[in-house]
Amino acid sequence: MTCFMDRDFLLDTEFARKLYHEHACDRPIFDYHNHLSPKDIAEHRRFRNLTELWLESDHYKWRAMRALNVDERYITGDAEPYEKFAAWAGVLPRLVGNALYYWTHLELQRYFGIDMLLGPDTAETIWDMTEKKLQQDGFDTVSLLQKMNVRYLCTTDDPADTLEWHRKIREDASIPFRVCPSFRPDRYLTEPGGAAAAALCDRYGTVNLGEALVRALDFFCQQGCLISDHGFSEFPYLTDPECAGLLRTLGKAYADRGIVMQLHLGAIRNNSAGLYASLGPDAGGDSVGMTTDPSALRAFFRDLEAEGQLPKTILYNLNPADNRMLATMAVNYAPRMQYGAAWWFNDMFRGISDQLDELMETGALAASVGMLTDSRSFTSFPRHEYFRRILCRKLGRMVEDGLHPADLSTLGRLVEDVCYANAERFFCDRVHPRTTP
Amino acid sequence: MTCFMDRDFLLDTEFARKLYHEHACDRPIFDYHNHLSPKDIAEHRRFRNLTELWLESDHYKWRAMRALNVDERYITGDAEPYEKFAAWAGVLPRLVGNALYYWTHLELQRYFGIDMLLGPDTAETIWDMTEKKLQQDGFDTVSLLQKMNVRYLCTTDDPADTLEWHRKIREDASIPFRVCPSFRPDRYLTEPGGAAAAALCDRYGTVNLGEALVRALDFFCQQGCLISDHGFSEFPYLTDPECAGLLRTLGKAYADRGIVMQLHLGAIRNNSAGLYASLGPDAGGDSVGMTTDPSALRAFFRDLEAEGQLPKTILYNLNPADNRMLATMAVNYAPRMQYGAAWWFNDMFRGISDQLDELMETGALAASVGMLTDSRSFTSFPRHEYFRRILCRKLGRMVEDGLHPADLSTLGRLVEDVCYANAERFFCDRVHPRTTP
Amino acid sequence: MTCFMDRDFLLDTEFARKLYHEHACDRPIFDYHNHLSPKDIAEHRRFRNLTELWLESDHYKWRAMRALNVDERYITGDAEPYEKFAAWAGVLPRLVGNALYYWTHLELQRYFGIDMLLGPDTAETIWDMTEKKLQQDGFDTVSLLQKMNVRYLCTTDDPADTLEWHRKIREDASIPFRVCPSFRPDRYLTEPGGAAAAALCDRYGTVNLGEALVRALDFFCQQGCLISDHGFSEFPYLTDPECAGLLRTLGKAYADRGIVMQLHLGAIRNNSAGLYASLGPDAGGDSVGMTTDPSALRAFFRDLEAEGQLPKTILYNLNPADNRMLATMAVNYAPRMQYGAAWWFNDMFRGISDQLDELMETGALAASVGMLTDSRSFTSFPRHEYFRRILCRKLGRMVEDGLHPADLSTLGRLVEDVCYANAERFFCDRVHPRTTP
Repeated sequence: MTCFMDRDFLLDTEFARKLYHEHACDRPIFDYHNHLSPKDIAEHRRFRNLTELWLESDHYKWRAMRALNVDERYITGDAEPYEKFAAWAGVLPRLVGNALYYWTHLELQRYFGIDMLLGPDTAETIWDMTEKKLQQDGFDTVSLLQKMNVRYLCTTDDPADTLEWHRKIREDASIPFRVCPSFRPDRYLTEPGGAAAAALCDRYGTVNLGEALVRALDFFCQQGCLISDHGFSEFPYLTDPECAGLLRTLGKAYADRGIVMQLHLGAIRNNSAGLYASLGPDAGGDSVGMTTDPSALRAFFRDLEAEGQLPKTILYNLNPADNRMLATMAVNYAPRMQYGAAWWFNDMFRGISDQLDELMETGALAASVGMLTDSRSFTSFPRHEYFRRILCRKLGRMVEDGLHPADLSTLGRLVEDVCYANAERFFCDRVHPRTTP
Repeated sequence: MTCFMDRDFLLDTEFARKLYHEHACDRPIFDYHNHLSPKDIAEHRRFRNLTELWLESDHYKWRAMRALNVDERYITGDAEPYEKFAAWAGVLPRLVGNALYYWTHLELQRYFGIDMLLGPDTAETIWDMTEKKLQQDGFDTVSLLQKMNVRYLCTTDDPADTLEWHRKIREDASIPFRVCPSFRPDRYLTEPGGAAAAALCDRYGTVNLGEALVRALDFFCQQGCLISDHGFSEFPYLTDPECAGLLRTLGKAYADRGIVMQLHLGAIRNNSAGLYASLGPDAGGDSVGMTTDPSALRAFFRDLEAEGQLPKTILYNLNPADNRMLATMAVNYAPRMQYGAAWWFNDMFRGISDQLDELMETGALAASVGMLTDSRSFTSFPRHEYFRRILCRKLGRMVEDGLHPADLSTLGRLVEDVCYANAERFFCDRVHPRTTP
Repeated sequence: MTCFMDRDFLLDTEFARKLYHEHACDRPIFDYHNHLSPKDIAEHRRFRNLTELWLESDHYKWRAMRALNVDERYITGDAEPYEKFAAWAGVLPRLVGNALYYWTHLELQRYFGIDMLLGPDTAETIWDMTEKKLQQDGFDTVSLLQKMNVRYLCTTDDPADTLEWHRKIREDASIPFRVCPSFRPDRYLTEPGGAAAAALCDRYGTVNLGEALVRALDFFCQQGCLISDHGFSEFPYLTDPECAGLLRTLGKAYADRGIVMQLHLGAIRNNSAGLYASLGPDAGGDSVGMTTDPSALRAFFRDLEAEGQLPKTILYNLNPADNRMLATMAVNYAPRMQYGAAWWFNDMFRGISDQLDELMETGALAASVGMLTDSRSFTSFPRHEYFRRILCRKLGRMVEDGLHPADLSTLGRLVEDVCYANAERFFCDRVHPRTTP
């Protein structure tokens, strides 16, 4: 029997252990999509306790607590910080097989050096130990990121953002990694006649929203932006002409500037009227939407191609029933298009494993830009480690099982590429990859 | 090599064996959804032979026989009972990996103590042995259920049913388990202007079908009803206003009375015109329908929530492409909503395994109400055993593989909860679980 | 650790090895669907080198090369044949887990006796060795097929085809296998008013396209046709009345003549405008379409049944999210209908494994007509071996794991049936299987 979460967690073959320890674990991190607060980085924010760090805005954990019948008072209500933490510790041992179980224990180990399992019996001890540590050096946001060997970090920002925190970060010589803004214009596309759109037009002295967005994008590019991001419940290219026009304008602008376009497809949000009324968005009431109709995507990509301006693109699906469809769609436009990492509800063992299989079997895993955190939390970076271990486990099993030659050099290079090098190449090199004929 | 179907069938780790033998196998059964005949229970019906018990109405077996080119005469035609049984025995050895293969042999072992494999060579012996046993004590319907340690049984009944058999069962002191009617108003919702609807309105002295249904529901509640059930090929909440109105009325009535609402989504029925013409419905011509559009479900749940009257709900999907969508949908409304057991064509090894993974990875397996038979057969209860073995196998493998600590007490409690305790709590406790804020 | 791709490749249990070596590997091949050129067979065509054999029209390989950022010049451009081969050899080692990796090495082993792994270091050696062999006896198209023990081969042909190459093949006594034309009328159904349709009507002296197609089918039948084939992005039976009428006419004609109807559902084609403009169709710009709406299929099948003329049918889906839906759909009409082999993007380890599971768990694997190549390449026949090894691996694991009795005779027969015998029965026997009641 294998010990739980020791040095060789998930690495069940000799080959996997070699791959991980020699080729994966020391790679830097290029976290190309997350929701970290640039202000928190610029200010080297500190956290008082695990409730502040873990529970204040993590709707993943809220959902798990609700599923296990915890009273809302201990989730988002007025309970004391320690009570909330104790409620979390109370349910965690029952979250067998949930990514939160692994993440929580990886975070305790990697950031705090705590090997204990969190549960009702250990909650108080762990609370005390971590509270103490959080006051010490090495537990501000910048140190937490540095500890994980982060080299690039792409936040998610509104086109109207002044990016002043990003500027401060760049000017702060003590921050050893790069923090890039990402361009996320969703609310302008869903409400092109809304106040935010009008304000953006005003700011850039134009009545044309597309032009305002492109000028905002140019400002973002000056501030180091590498990536944009769009989220859609259903991709509206064939049903909403105004949105389609803006998408075309932006797509071409991304292509011109070498900006990578991310499309996140198929989340439905704020499904619980009760949660939305009491807590607003991002309260744990979001879930997986319908499968995607590829014809709208196809029309969009073809229109951009027709003008020679299909940008580098990453496709993410929330409904795993779309895996093969989007994975094969991306390869139609390879090497400019990538099938993205397992997103949100798929960001767990099976989801990651399925995404890797999909890449291997219908495209080329060796070209993948790898993992991201997509997180609001400064201690979510062991998700990269979790991904890397699953990657090495899978490759190790293939070798063990005679499904691939025991070629450490080729597989080692593949692992290094997927863990870091591909991302740096894909996001930072403005000409790579070449345009298709 | 492991022996086929011995005491440790499916239990391939020491931990799984412990979990199963110490925490699963002796749990009682709460079979919260099936199609057993209450008349057959009340009358302590006996069966003459395995054809009567197994083949007369089991369209699962009919499909398998047709797939293997058995002549319809031996399936639903005028062949002699033994000929039909021999035809079944003739194909069974070729149904490698089919749930029917496991169920059949589990039933032979558990009810008849027969360890032989059924096949052409053993058909006659097994026919004779079982025919003899079926005449003995312990083989009437009540005894068969008692042998499986059934504690609750929820049948599926028409709102117009007089429930007299349920009453007789309650009055029969020799029946040691509870048999509850369930409220299944499908035909009233699909034909609100039909004869059955008119008759129900007449009976309750109203012209309002919604009112008649609620009064019928009240009658069901007096007779011990815990659960309702609705089946939809496509959920019509956004497309059929009359049906939507009835659904709202019923949903609120369920919430008021603490009745659990089951939604079975995505079966398409009577696809074979030939089978339907000759045999009517439930002839083996049903199959998996399209994936579900979550927006109609979302609208229904939000409307009920808006009035504070979302009932406890269980979502079942027939198309496994909907697994993640419905599993995450349920958690939006946790703890009132559950993602249901693997249904019908998914009720087999991979389907059960996928449902458990879905619960673990996107919700909380520990809160699941577990398995049901959904069956017309009085010997289908080893399906609970099959489920429990798969559950313990999965947990055992996780422990063996270092994916979970070897914590027998937490995992043992989880198994006990999923096998029985959660169901009792969810269905019988009128206030549990708490309403979301 | 298991050696890569030795004699027991994929066969990880003793039982699997027995099954494969005693019951699978010597079975003949019934390749009931492919895109081989009958002209190339009739002319006993030879190939100059591996580029001609492997790379000139294989858009699977083109996609993989593009995904790994190979310049189009080395894919479809004007690079020298050896340069193209070297480019392929350059990326192959990085295609970990891709079916192309296995197919390539199986083809080197089985046709050329080369055990080396193809890669940058071995490219030149392998180029030279294979170039020499290709000039020797035993490397013309007929010999390549004979070497693989092919007994039946069904090409894919236009209804307007004169089938003269098929006639020449029949008259060539040195060709020891049967080559049957298959009837693929797609372009007549999508453009019933087009030039091709008009020409076909002219040829058969009718203004009725349906009649012309049926007469063309009769001609095909005289030339040994066993199978027809239809491809649909979305099945238009309920949305395009003209196409529906033609489908009904053809469906009945197939039933009358004992012709098997294949339906390939859910490919979307020519998605890349750039690839289509420069290279035309089949350029590697095709991918997986939306999930299938079963109601259109259901209506078609019921209409044919209503007239007692549902032909033998095989359903293939490109979107794996449709697996369970189509697998259960087929059984509604069993034994006349089959759920087909893993198609195109699903023709890889997981896809094949999933199809086998689907057949086992929702139908009867023992009745399956097994594998096909669907290929344009004369060296693609090790795909049958790959399938057979996966089949034996799966059955062997079930036995090893106690999920099936170690019954070599039953499982051996099943393997033999699936590898060859079922196909011969299904395609060649005009009365099998019986009509449902």
